[in-house]
Amino acid sequence: MYAAPPIQKLLDELERLPGIGPKSAQRIAYWLLNADRAVALRLSEAIAEVKESVHFCARCFNYAQDELCEVCRSVTRDPQIICVVSEPRDIPPIERTAMFSGLYHVLGGALSPMEGIGPDDLNINALLQRLATEEVGEVLLATNPNVEGETTAAYLARLIKPLGITVTRLASGLPVGGDLEFADEVTLGRAIESRRVL
Amino acid sequence: MYAAPPIQKLLDELERLPGIGPKSAQRIAYWLLNADRAVALRLSEAIAEVKESVHFCARCFNYAQDELCEVCRSVTRDPQIICVVSEPRDIPPIERTAMFSGLYHVLGGALSPMEGIGPDDLNINALLQRLATEEVGEVLLATNPNVEGETTAAYLARLIKPLGITVTRLASGLPVGGDLEFADEVTLGRAIESRRVL
Repeated sequence: MYAAPPIQKLLDELERLPGIGPKSAQRIAYWLLNADRAVALRLSEAIAEVKESVHFCARCFNYAQDELCEVCRSVTRDPQIICVVSEPRDIPPIERTAMFSGLYHVLGGALSPMEGIGPDDLNINALLQRLATEEVGEVLLATNPNVEGETTAAYLARLIKPLGITVTRLASGLPVGGDLEFADEVTLGRAIESRRVL
Repeated sequence: MYAAPPIQKLLDELERLPGIGPKSAQRIAYWLLNADRAVALRLSEAIAEVKESVHFCARCFNYAQDELCEVCRSVTRDPQIICVVSEPRDIPPIERTAMFSGLYHVLGGALSPMEGIGPDDLNINALLQRLATEEVGEVLLATNPNVEGETTAAYLARLIKPLGITVTRLASGLPVGGDLEFADEVTLGRAIESRRVL
């Protein structure tokens, strides 16, 4: 035992965080010990506050401080298009593109027979409810381009198309700025399959 | 604005931490949002507690929960040898080697004319006080092997040697497991200079 117990406790808790190993935990712990009291307490309080005050948006299941999330409360968003994502954490990257101005719907996961996650475990009924009551012209399926995400997208497409709503999917292809040389064959195959006329 | 204010606040605070960029901050924030309330609050409280209850050891200036740190309170440590380090964070790596069983003295920095840090800004008087009152046979200077650390070690050696106390310095040389090919010339030069007879 060479760290005072409160320091060891902090190290233990920091090491639970994703991407934080023993060395990073140590660096952060000593930084906090060295930091202004106010700076450290702001972090402590921000963590507590996020657990107190953040819950799921009643409409789209994004994280929200009020009943509805920032996106659902905005009057400038286009309610005719809903982007369906697996998790709330998928929303910030889409927002950063500034290419989407519609609303969201968070499924809370993806279909996975392996992990026993079926349609009833996701916010799919709530989505169908929204499609029945809101005037939606397009549903953009933005689940991840992996097995579970593709399965979920295919399942939702089968459910939603009969409602006369346009169903779209994020394009697959080469990452912008990437090298052909280093592209995996599945991605490159998709890029060829989905080639555009110039 | 696409994150609820409490989430944005947490992201801002996380990004201040050393080694945590926007992506890591996002990963940690969403992990905390998703985590059990108890897990997140344990981290929040560990940060607050470390700022409440940890201060400097009255004897060696290591971080301590009580008046004296864990090392100074231990009855199994050898009080005849004091290892002098720049910062409290330098102690855990030394403890992990299990090669040192003496006491410590933390200077709280290193001499740096560039940054205006002189002898009076470090816990040097307290060290001399200890050498005058405790029965110390050896002082191991374990400041960093850089310009400031070497300057500080040289300065302390000049002060302490006349007291009739053995002054030692951490060896410089090739890191164990390292490659000669990739060693910088200063380190390799030191390794040659300090070569051992086998």
